[in-house]
Amino acid sequence: MRILYHIPLSPFCRKVRLALAEKRIPFDLRLERVWERRPEFEALNPAHTVPVLLEDNGFAIADSYAICEYLDEAYPDIPLLGRTLGERAEVRRLVAWFDDKFHNEVTRNLLYEKQMKRQLGRGNPDAAAMRAGYQNMKHHLEYLGWLAESRAWLAGAQLSLADFAAAAHLSSLDYIGDVKWDLSEPARDWYARMKSRPCFRGLLTDRVSGVTPPEHYADLDF
Amino acid sequence: MRILYHIPLSPFCRKVRLALAEKRIPFDLRLERVWERRPEFEALNPAHTVPVLLEDNGFAIADSYAICEYLDEAYPDIPLLGRTLGERAEVRRLVAWFDDKFHNEVTRNLLYEKQMKRQLGRGNPDAAAMRAGYQNMKHHLEYLGWLAESRAWLAGAQLSLADFAAAAHLSSLDYIGDVKWDLSEPARDWYARMKSRPCFRGLLTDRVSGVTPPEHYADLDF
Repeated sequence: MRILYHIPLSPFCRKVRLALAEKRIPFDLRLERVWERRPEFEALNPAHTVPVLLEDNGFAIADSYAICEYLDEAYPDIPLLGRTLGERAEVRRLVAWFDDKFHNEVTRNLLYEKQMKRQLGRGNPDAAAMRAGYQNMKHHLEYLGWLAESRAWLAGAQLSLADFAAAAHLSSLDYIGDVKWDLSEPARDWYARMKSRPCFRGLLTDRVSGVTPPEHYADLDF
Repeated sequence: MRILYHIPLSPFCRKVRLALAEKRIPFDLRLERVWERRPEFEALNPAHTVPVLLEDNGFAIADSYAICEYLDEAYPDIPLLGRTLGERAEVRRLVAWFDDKFHNEVTRNLLYEKQMKRQLGRGNPDAAAMRAGYQNMKHHLEYLGWLAESRAWLAGAQLSLADFAAAAHLSSLDYIGDVKWDLSEPARDWYARMKSRPCFRGLLTDRVSGVTPPEHYADLDF
C-alpha cells in the first residue's frame, strides 16, 4: 500500500492527506519523527521533512508542493488545481498565500511556539510571537471570509487545493484551540462545510499524544 | 508588453526572470517597492509581494510558484519542469529545496540581515543569524556540488527550473559578495555554466542603487 510519511499536526501533511482522500486514493499513514533523522528516511528525502509520499512501485515524492502537483498529474480524475490557466493561477496563488504567508504570520507563531517547541524541548513559547500570531489571524480570517462570501469555494466555482491548504492550517490550529471562529462568520461557515466532507474524517479522528483538542474540534456543528 | 513587477535582489523574482528569458518570452521589468503598499499593486496581488506577472491581456499572476507553473503550461515549447512524472517530482523537490530550505537557512540569514533590514530601516544585522547563514551555506554548496557532479544539471539530464531556483538565490547572494565559491569546485563550475547562458545576461548587468557587487559578479570566468 502507498505510504504517506507524516506528522499529525503538520499543515503541509494535512493538505496532502485531504487531497489524497478527496481524490479517493488509498494510503497508509506512517508517523515520521523527522528530528530523529533516520537514515532510511534520508534516502527518501535528504531535506528530512514531511510529507513524503511513497508509491507502491518505490517511487518517492518529497515536499507537499511536489506531491500535490504530482497527484493532479498522475490521478487527474478529480482535479484539484483548476482547469483553465486563470483558475490554476488563482488556486496556486491561494495555496502559496496559506502555505507561505499564513504559515509565516500565523501558524508558525502559534503552532510552533506552543506545540513544536515543547515537543522538541526548545524552551517556552515566545509571548511576542504569539501576540503577533493572534493579531495576524484576525486579518487572515477576514480575508478568508471575504473569499468564502464572494465565491462558491476559496479559489472560485470549484473546490480546490486552495480550500485544502487553508483548511489544513486552520485544522492544525483548531486542534490546539487557537482559532477564534467568532472573528468571521463566513470563514466559520466555510470551515463547517469543509469539515463535513468525507475527506476530512481522518483529520477529525486523529489524536496527538499529550494534546487534547477542544470539544468543538470534531463537532460538525461547532 | 508583458510586465514583471520585481525587486532586483529578490531570488524569487530572479527565478522568474531566468525562466522567462530561457523560454524567450519578452517582458519589461518594473520595480515595485512593495513596502510602500501601493493600492494599484494591491489590486494585482493582495499579498503585496513580488514577483507579479502581468500579461498583455490584463491577466495577472502572483507568486513565483504560480508564475513558473503557469509559464510551463502557457508556453510549453521550452519546458522547464521536466517531462515524466519522475523528472517533474525531482525538479519540484529541488525548487522547494532552494526556495524553502536554502531560503530559510541561508538567503534569509544573509541577504535579509545585511541588505533588506538596512533598506527598510529595521536596524543592524543580527550576528548570530549571519553566522548561521554562512555555516549553512557550506552544507548547501556541498549538496549542490554533489548534485552537479552526479548529473548533467541539478535535477537530471535536462536544464530545469531547479537550476534557475538555485542560481537565483546564489546570484542574489553573490551580488552582495556572500558566496564562498572555494567551498565547492563542482558548484562553482555549475554556476559558471549557468552564468554564461544568454538568459543570465539581464541579472549580470543589473545594478542596485547603493550596493556595488564584487568584481567577479559579472565575470564569466570568475
